[in-house]
Amino acid sequence: MSYDNRIIFAPASQVGESGITVVRLSGLGTIELVSNCFSRTYALRSVGAADFKSHTVHHGYLYGGDEIIDEAVLTVFRGPNSYTGEDVAEISTHGGSYIYRRVDELLVKLGAFHAEPGEFSKRAYLNGKMDLAQAEAVADLISAKTAEANKLALAQLTGKFSGKIKELKDDLINYCSLLELELDFSEEGIDLVEKDVLLERVNSLIAKFESLTRSYESGKIIKEGVNLAIIGKPNVGKSSIFNYLLSDNRAIVSDIPGTTRDYLQEPLFMGGIRFNIVDTAGLRKTTDIVEKEGVRRSMLKIEEADIILHVIDLTSEISNNDIQDLPAEKLISVGNKSDLAGALQRESAQPVSAKTGEGMQELEQIIIGKARGLISKNSQSEIIITNQRHRDCLLKSCEYLVNAREQILSGGGNELISFEIRAAMDSLSEIIGKTANVDILNNIFTKFCIGK
Amino acid sequence: MSYDNRIIFAPASQVGESGITVVRLSGLGTIELVSNCFSRTYALRSVGAADFKSHTVHHGYLYGGDEIIDEAVLTVFRGPNSYTGEDVAEISTHGGSYIYRRVDELLVKLGAFHAEPGEFSKRAYLNGKMDLAQAEAVADLISAKTAEANKLALAQLTGKFSGKIKELKDDLINYCSLLELELDFSEEGIDLVEKDVLLERVNSLIAKFESLTRSYESGKIIKEGVNLAIIGKPNVGKSSIFNYLLSDNRAIVSDIPGTTRDYLQEPLFMGGIRFNIVDTAGLRKTTDIVEKEGVRRSMLKIEEADIILHVIDLTSEISNNDIQDLPAEKLISVGNKSDLAGALQRESAQPVSAKTGEGMQELEQIIIGKARGLISKNSQSEIIITNQRHRDCLLKSCEYLVNAREQILSGGGNELISFEIRAAMDSLSEIIGKTANVDILNNIFTKFCIGK
Repeated sequence: MSYDNRIIFAPASQVGESGITVVRLSGLGTIELVSNCFSRTYALRSVGAADFKSHTVHHGYLYGGDEIIDEAVLTVFRGPNSYTGEDVAEISTHGGSYIYRRVDELLVKLGAFHAEPGEFSKRAYLNGKMDLAQAEAVADLISAKTAEANKLALAQLTGKFSGKIKELKDDLINYCSLLELELDFSEEGIDLVEKDVLLERVNSLIAKFESLTRSYESGKIIKEGVNLAIIGKPNVGKSSIFNYLLSDNRAIVSDIPGTTRDYLQEPLFMGGIRFNIVDTAGLRKTTDIVEKEGVRRSMLKIEEADIILHVIDLTSEISNNDIQDLPAEKLISVGNKSDLAGALQRESAQPVSAKTGEGMQELEQIIIGKARGLISKNSQSEIIITNQRHRDCLLKSCEYLVNAREQILSGGGNELISFEIRAAMDSLSEIIGKTANVDILNNIFTKFCIGK
Repeated sequence: MSYDNRIIFAPASQVGESGITVVRLSGLGTIELVSNCFSRTYALRSVGAADFKSHTVHHGYLYGGDEIIDEAVLTVFRGPNSYTGEDVAEISTHGGSYIYRRVDELLVKLGAFHAEPGEFSKRAYLNGKMDLAQAEAVADLISAKTAEANKLALAQLTGKFSGKIKELKDDLINYCSLLELELDFSEEGIDLVEKDVLLERVNSLIAKFESLTRSYESGKIIKEGVNLAIIGKPNVGKSSIFNYLLSDNRAIVSDIPGTTRDYLQEPLFMGGIRFNIVDTAGLRKTTDIVEKEGVRRSMLKIEEADIILHVIDLTSEISNNDIQDLPAEKLISVGNKSDLAGALQRESAQPVSAKTGEGMQELEQIIIGKARGLISKNSQSEIIITNQRHRDCLLKSCEYLVNAREQILSGGGNELISFEIRAAMDSLSEIIGKTANVDILNNIFTKFCIGK
């Protein structure tokens, strides 16, 4: 395919005012291309890169025509021992946006093309350097913000996750083969697969797949964070609590009810867990158009929440009709303004003062505890699904297994049972990419950053 | 010195959600330190980095204790063939802030120290890998925003600039030696230096040094940009012209005089030249406290300006008393609102309409032409000074030469003439760092970015 023979390039590190910028090139002819613009000597352009051995590093100068663009360090990786499996060169120039612009112009002029997002990893996948789940882990690893997210991405990158998927797949292959072999001997009446044993095995696989699918609830939270919404009536101090947890004056605070009109959302790290904390508009009936829209948008955020902090004002009379429709297991009740005279005790609410900090540390521990519970609740399986695509493949695979079970129970023939199991196997294989089509690939790799 | 024996590290590339982050380490024991946390194999930690040859690259895994932090690529440079002249290792991990945090923790735990800004380049200088002017060029190169600034920085980095300084220095050494040699033969009455020839030579050097010092006016503009201030009475359309030149709605524009109260400043590139364009508050007497302060601050910006766009409203009666104290050679007169009915012709003013774009291209050419004139005016010398420290050294050196000239003219003895020339030589040497003291070094390198 002519498309894939192009030499591609992109900055592998971020371009900015840093010590160095690393530009990565990949494709057939990369070393030759680089040897046309790199020289180890300053005055003479006699020594190029064409003979450089794989995995060696060279100091020299980058030339555009007869003009030096920068002093540079060139690293050569010869395929297949490279990230993409193709010939790869990495040029480290000094940092700075101007130099990168020059390098970009130069490489285009020499016939290289701008890499698409994820194109290096896509080539690594197409050249068999990693499977699809591993390639996806690269993007997850880079965006990981916590120890847990990092650990899951690394397990996936290093193939531990793919190994487990392959184990499950081998199990299915095994049964398919036996069922199909039995077909060949059907006239002799040889029974290779006991239907009871098969049923038991399929049931156990269904249970396993369901547990894996559920683990996505944990995986999603680990990867994307716990959605934590702060709700309550106007002027109970939601924004003050939001600011206190963030250690930042992000939200404007005033005594005027309805100060927060649109919701505010910020990432927050507590106890090694990522939270997406949302300060919502105070829930009340209002005729103000802006505030009305704010309440509507806040309601959507509350629906997405994994944990809801329901804030009440300990100095006011309390009614709970603002939370009557919310799931009780998500709620943490917080009584604010505990420092004020006339603050009442409320047995079910954690008393805090966002003003003095009183009780706030305890509240943080309560939130962290609830988040830990959410994460561990669905992560009983050996591996945790963090990727929606993987979960969808598992769900599809599981459906085929349910069909297979029905066939077994209703006395369906081997060919029918085998057909369903084989379909289950194909869906499972999609996770590691053995059966992935072009659309799936494009969809996956366009989510990557450029240069990876 | 125990301080300099420390192993230092810092990210050499920017840390962010990019393909890779490069961490650089330098110092005695770097390779041993790295071999304690890097393994080429995933499962076993048997193979470390201790035996890796210089200028080789290795794929493997970075370990913190028994836990993998990331898949990584390690590059080894053994001193003295490295950037700093010491043993250097570069670890490329995946990008992302979480991974870098882990790497940072790991390296500190293994005994490495956070590098100070410019500490790698400082070590390179102290270890004789580059002179001071070359080290300074590294920072200039990274922050260069235009072709000219890049070119000057490269000439300085690759030693062309230092070479010229050394030539001048050798000239001075030459004369010192002859003068001092003559002293040794004074009893024999041998004349090694003709005083006429010496005088001529010193005069020519003074002229050369003065021209070099003047070249700083060009150098500064090339490096930092042309300061371009837009001034004029309220409501003549300064902000509209500012926005038009920037191709951006940066300044709020309204019909109300005094809309711009504080000045706005933005970088702008036209004709390969960097401009710092300033939209000033309309100059008028006012009792509004905020506007008054705005006018005061705008006046300071006008004083700093290299070029002043004086905007008048072609539909209004015109008086020039707002510019009577400004240097005429800096002024470009612009008549705005040429599209309106009743717009008058003004022979000295470029007619434009910031609304329709009429005349704006011509105005840009006038500005670029004036800026080119400024740059070329003082850049007649073979090299251009871009660094204030260099200019100060040259000025000091020149003063000593002027003293030497006086000694020659007043028939001073060889030892007195030689003393002044030697002092001139020392000041010149400070540019390339042969005589720089610790304070000068610290002052230079703290302006660098971390990791360089």
